[in-house]
Amino acid sequence: MLGIKVICVGRLKEQFYSDAAAEYIKRLGAFCKLELEELPESRLPVNPSPADMESALSQEADRIELRLPSNSAIIALCVEGTMLDSEQLSQLLQKFASLGKSRLCFIIGGSLGLHDRIKQRADFCLSMSRMTFPHHLARVMLFEQLYRGFKISEGSKYHK
Amino acid sequence: MLGIKVICVGRLKEQFYSDAAAEYIKRLGAFCKLELEELPESRLPVNPSPADMESALSQEADRIELRLPSNSAIIALCVEGTMLDSEQLSQLLQKFASLGKSRLCFIIGGSLGLHDRIKQRADFCLSMSRMTFPHHLARVMLFEQLYRGFKISEGSKYHK
Repeated sequence: MLGIKVICVGRLKEQFYSDAAAEYIKRLGAFCKLELEELPESRLPVNPSPADMESALSQEADRIELRLPSNSAIIALCVEGTMLDSEQLSQLLQKFASLGKSRLCFIIGGSLGLHDRIKQRADFCLSMSRMTFPHHLARVMLFEQLYRGFKISEGSKYHK
Repeated sequence: MLGIKVICVGRLKEQFYSDAAAEYIKRLGAFCKLELEELPESRLPVNPSPADMESALSQEADRIELRLPSNSAIIALCVEGTMLDSEQLSQLLQKFASLGKSRLCFIIGGSLGLHDRIKQRADFCLSMSRMTFPHHLARVMLFEQLYRGFKISEGSKYHK
């Protein structure tokens, strides 16, 4: 069974997003070993300078790098990444699995996004939308697309 | 104050999506007069033929057409539409408002999407993603983007 690790910077605050994420995690249990790791978001002053933001992103990147699993394909989520439709994401899951990667690791940044060095290290940068969504909602969207991807692979009708 | 009507085919089933939508509706109250209208989804047999689906979509389109407000810009959501980033959506809201349209009407189809004649009638077809999301989640995504669009217009920091 494919292992999927999802690294998220920041904790879900809104109960409805937690509940939505929990529902998809439950459903994904039928298709993969899912591991979710939440890392703390760096604190920013009220009016952060570019240097404050760079520093916060870099600290978050440090924490992410410590938690990246070995022998994993790394997929970073960022608005400027490559856009895939749901079928293509499903194929990507299958492709990485068939390459002998024992697991996939998706990374969702915090409110500032991800540091460039995480994007550069990633095997693939995935954009779910040109629109900027709050990272909490992005987490729900990713889980739903992973679930949809597995349902597409098994030829079920969920995705219709 | 700009009036925004959102026509949705189908009712929200999951409590977490209802709660999320309710939260954004509450927040949007500061920026627009929001009216949400849910229309019934047409029933389909277990293994629907293309003709069954065309018929269901057409029935749903009939119901939508009856509820389209006059003097409104019509924006249909569909996966193959034009992709905008959050800033461009914010500009679109301002543009339609400045054209003297007293309101905007967004339309989100049901699980089959929207009939072509609704897309053809629309002033704009908007795609939030190349990925297919469940229409319930799409509703939350749209509300969040409308809220973000207003926050961008007022120059606030929410969208950072």
